Amino acid sequence: MMDKCLITFYPDNKKIMVSKGTDILNAAIAAGVYINSSCGGEGVCGRCKVIIRKGDVRSEPTGRLTRKEVEKGYVLACHSTIHSNVEIEIPPSSRLEKQQILTEEARIERLKGVFSEAGEIERGIELEERGIFSHSPLATKLFLELPPPTLKDNVSDLERLYREVRRKRGIPILQTGLSNVKKIGRLFRESDWQVTVLLGKRNGTTEIVLIEPGNTSGRDFGLAFDIGTTTIVAQLIDLNTKKVLSTKAAYNKQASYGEDVITRMIYAGKKAGLEKLHHLVVDIMNELILAMATECKISLNEITCVMCAGNMTMTHLLLRVDPTYLRREPYVPTANFMPVIRAAEVGIKINPRGLLECMPGVSSYVGADIVAGVLASGIDEADVLSLLIDIGTNGEIVLGNKDWLVSCSSSAGPAFEGSGVSSGVRAMEGAIQRVKITPGDFEVKYSTIGDAKPIGICGSGYIDSLAELFKAGVIDRSGNIKENISSQRVREGKEGPEFVLAWTRETQTGEDVIITQSDITNLVRSKGAIYTAAKVLANKMGLELADVKKIYLAGGFGNYLNIEKSVWIGLLPDLEKDKFRFIGNTSLAGAKFALLSYDAMVKAREIARKMTYIELSVEPSFMNEYTGALFLPHTDIDRFPTVTEKLS
Amino acid sequence: MMDKCLITFYPDNKKIMVSKGTDILNAAIAAGVYINSSCGGEGVCGRCKVIIRKGDVRSEPTGRLTRKEVEKGYVLACHSTIHSNVEIEIPPSSRLEKQQILTEEARIERLKGVFSEAGEIERGIELEERGIFSHSPLATKLFLELPPPTLKDNVSDLERLYREVRRKRGIPILQTGLSNVKKIGRLFRESDWQVTVLLGKRNGTTEIVLIEPGNTSGRDFGLAFDIGTTTIVAQLIDLNTKKVLSTKAAYNKQASYGEDVITRMIYAGKKAGLEKLHHLVVDIMNELILAMATECKISLNEITCVMCAGNMTMTHLLLRVDPTYLRREPYVPTANFMPVIRAAEVGIKINPRGLLECMPGVSSYVGADIVAGVLASGIDEADVLSLLIDIGTNGEIVLGNKDWLVSCSSSAGPAFEGSGVSSGVRAMEGAIQRVKITPGDFEVKYSTIGDAKPIGICGSGYIDSLAELFKAGVIDRSGNIKENISSQRVREGKEGPEFVLAWTRETQTGEDVIITQSDITNLVRSKGAIYTAAKVLANKMGLELADVKKIYLAGGFGNYLNIEKSVWIGLLPDLEKDKFRFIGNTSLAGAKFALLSYDAMVKAREIARKMTYIELSVEPSFMNEYTGALFLPHTDIDRFPTVTEKLS
Repeated sequence: MMDKCLITFYPDNKKIMVSKGTDILNAAIAAGVYINSSCGGEGVCGRCKVIIRKGDVRSEPTGRLTRKEVEKGYVLACHSTIHSNVEIEIPPSSRLEKQQILTEEARIERLKGVFSEAGEIERGIELEERGIFSHSPLATKLFLELPPPTLKDNVSDLERLYREVRRKRGIPILQTGLSNVKKIGRLFRESDWQVTVLLGKRNGTTEIVLIEPGNTSGRDFGLAFDIGTTTIVAQLIDLNTKKVLSTKAAYNKQASYGEDVITRMIYAGKKAGLEKLHHLVVDIMNELILAMATECKISLNEITCVMCAGNMTMTHLLLRVDPTYLRREPYVPTANFMPVIRAAEVGIKINPRGLLECMPGVSSYVGADIVAGVLASGIDEADVLSLLIDIGTNGEIVLGNKDWLVSCSSSAGPAFEGSGVSSGVRAMEGAIQRVKITPGDFEVKYSTIGDAKPIGICGSGYIDSLAELFKAGVIDRSGNIKENISSQRVREGKEGPEFVLAWTRETQTGEDVIITQSDITNLVRSKGAIYTAAKVLANKMGLELADVKKIYLAGGFGNYLNIEKSVWIGLLPDLEKDKFRFIGNTSLAGAKFALLSYDAMVKAREIARKMTYIELSVEPSFMNEYTGALFLPHTDIDRFPTVTEKLS
Repeated sequence: MMDKCLITFYPDNKKIMVSKGTDILNAAIAAGVYINSSCGGEGVCGRCKVIIRKGDVRSEPTGRLTRKEVEKGYVLACHSTIHSNVEIEIPPSSRLEKQQILTEEARIERLKGVFSEAGEIERGIELEERGIFSHSPLATKLFLELPPPTLKDNVSDLERLYREVRRKRGIPILQTGLSNVKKIGRLFRESDWQVTVLLGKRNGTTEIVLIEPGNTSGRDFGLAFDIGTTTIVAQLIDLNTKKVLSTKAAYNKQASYGEDVITRMIYAGKKAGLEKLHHLVVDIMNELILAMATECKISLNEITCVMCAGNMTMTHLLLRVDPTYLRREPYVPTANFMPVIRAAEVGIKINPRGLLECMPGVSSYVGADIVAGVLASGIDEADVLSLLIDIGTNGEIVLGNKDWLVSCSSSAGPAFEGSGVSSGVRAMEGAIQRVKITPGDFEVKYSTIGDAKPIGICGSGYIDSLAELFKAGVIDRSGNIKENISSQRVREGKEGPEFVLAWTRETQTGEDVIITQSDITNLVRSKGAIYTAAKVLANKMGLELADVKKIYLAGGFGNYLNIEKSVWIGLLPDLEKDKFRFIGNTSLAGAKFALLSYDAMVKAREIARKMTYIELSVEPSFMNEYTGALFLPHTDIDRFPTVTEKLS
């Protein structure tokens, strides 16, 4: 038998027994202790520093720790294994501290601001009015009063049931499983032939999923999920009234194994990696489900279906399908259209026979979240040329109208999600989201989410900062901090010049909130990638971005993105302001539409089939365009006339 | 914890540990020891007598044991429970002795004679020639050479697979399970995009059941099963060549819990009764499958589908569906059309993802065996009026032509299967099958199956005997043994007059083979029930039996039934001999057709839907007709002109 070791994690004082040789990162996850990590345990990001208080821990050599840190007992959790009982301290820098986690309520208010907004509701009404959003959920309950059999009317119990369902609904292929057949004999007679069936839409047929005694049709609930790389958002919906009863969100704990999809795919390829990532997402979903059900006094058995929208990697991981081939040329998913399954098959805890459907995707890097976004925005029905930009870790772009749709993924990186930048944080309480810098004296004014003392900078704060630094003349068009700036705020940091946005005395963290030269370079690359993607996509279709009549902005930014400043830095094309429209979390909105309406699901499938994926990396014009976009706002200043005007 | 007791069964010397209080019959079944029993453990049939050699056994009082037997230690196994370690002897009368079991080979030869005969082969050729028996098995393997994905042709793995299948086969709804989706990414690449899929026809859709690397399409095997109340017959079939590779048969061990379907339904209603009957049939099927697969050097994984035909009770028990409601007015099955399931769902050991389909039935007492019979006989396509008589425990009758079909069940009882009659045996080695009795001196000539010394009388032997006793003047038209017969062979037995067919010195059993007055009454009731069913069915349609142009005789009798003698006793209507045709085990033949051809299965479904079931017990003319049929050949002698002619 393998030796077991006891680990105690401080300051949480959480304990766990693990096999000798286990690495600390895995042990911490098993113990439910959070340690930052963004490279998937590759030893690259250096974010999982922990301090060994006691015990035998063996670490691989790493360049990610300073000599001082090594002296203090720091090791990288991912590259250190346990060989005796140990005590480990997780320093604040490696922890998801209080200031780094929004309280549940604050978080949800924020999320509500993002997705319950006008755009989605309008779109829902529009679809309903046009009659293409009929009330036909993934699973529907139907109460039946079966005529009891007689010697004259002696068809079998199952055919009697089918006959009555067909009498009420025009369904060609109707089927059910043996487990239901086994119970109907007794159930029909004991319930005096009054039963409720749950009809599920399953892979082109209709399944009688459940048969319950009496009339339970009044209680039928479903879930819409947005499975994001960073955040998972869920809605509990009354399938009869279409009302959203509860909305909850949680971070995707898979982030411990990598912040972007690429590192997670790589991690999934390791031993038991796929299983771990799969279980992490399922666990979070179950936690959210249980919390919502408890809050609404709904039994898990009354939840009969789940509709999920996520990018292709998230969809694969949720279903425990190996995502390895997504990232290998020619970048082919295992399936764009996943079969409808029982939610229990992947461990989702609702009614054990309840259904789980994943919305369809287009390609490895344009997933169901984007298809849901098109569905929710309606650009596939528009007469005019429209652009959908979803700014997340990847930054997916869709261009088209009612006749055609093309899409691509920009690999923008997670800088706008506060990742990989020195003072970056997610959009949470204390995150600087608005910035104003006065030219000349470089006086800084900022506002934070929740008006708390700053803890860092989130995406919209970075866009503001970049634009303001540029406008105030702190950085030049190449994104370099100018050498001749005479201000305390501009100083030489550990890795080159940096700009201080908030001083230690103002912050919660006891550290300055800064933007370094390398942060700026990083942000410029991100914004350049998104702009380039949109530009190349338009050019590929023989069009210019100026031809676009409507631009939909989706993603976590929501209304917090400042369009004018985004144009200033060249993230968004320089078009009339009234062409832009915020549409919030369209992944969740699309999932909700598809959950509530089979027509919407059929439409989503059409969108997925109709949309052409363009692999940017093989487009000849891509590199030139990208290089040109690594300027503020662009090397070709004529493309940004309003900026040019103000600069001159 | 419950106390355990050790039981030793002699003469087999088989041991088993059971809980205190277990009854001996159940303990014997658990130990794999056969004890006769035909009432389902009700204590009624008195066939399960065993002798307690040692130990504490408590028995309920019974009138089925003589005082002498009680003194010798006899008890009824079904009504005696075990309260210490015990030793039990099973006497020959309660055992399936050597003479009662055909050796495997002899049995199969006999069965082959029944079902491999001309009728089935002719019918197969006929169906094929008419193009309504295309080669389209329940599950078919298809080899695919998928084009590997490229940046241009970048559809996902699953859609690539679907596309190729659709290219080769016109299939509208194609689906597969998550378990296949999970493995294709790796499998396609490791097998260099050369794969074999198994396409299964499942509840109105086509399922990709299996995906295997390389080309395995050459090896695809299926099973046809006739699940009879008494006997289970199986065929292992090469699905590519349609060739029958092996045929095996075994007794249905459920018989320990009742010889007819009614007693089994009752037993199924007892605690754990359904589970026991279910497991017994599945175990036998698995034994047959393993034996055939071993013989043919075929791996169980290469067996991909099973088609079963059985009566409604057998179908319910196989699928573990409670048969209780079959026997309660208005006699409604849980399902006439059972869903196609994975064979593994009920424990059938073939490929774990392989399919099991049960042919459809019509009503509680006209099951899939009869639908299979109609399919195999083709009476549903005939221009002329045809009659199908399946003489088994029930004796089902179908009347009709290409425009309509009516059916009924006769409750003939198992007398013609050798059950419930004093010297009755199944059609096995040593069974008297042909009898000749000379009028005047009552000299008896008989022949047995396998020319062995007699062990008893089987169905065809009883028909001959009854006709010969009647012709020779031993019995009168009411079936009573005449009082004034001067012959040693006619004597007063324990329960009234009896006729000795074979003397002790001639037999294997050391006992006379006799026909008692009560046997005759029993047989007359059986033949009367079958004739009446046919007559009432014809009358119900405003027709006479004389209008029937073709009579198909199905069931275990096969060619062994003597038509002339059957007419003499009034079992069969008095029609021209060339109107009769033996068609053997049509249940198995029909299952084979349906296994090999989806068209045949569609036809079977049409037959099941088209056929009207007539409940004889509520037909006003039934009782009168039945009473009239309790004579030899009938009270209305004009209905049997050829018999009348010979009698006069």
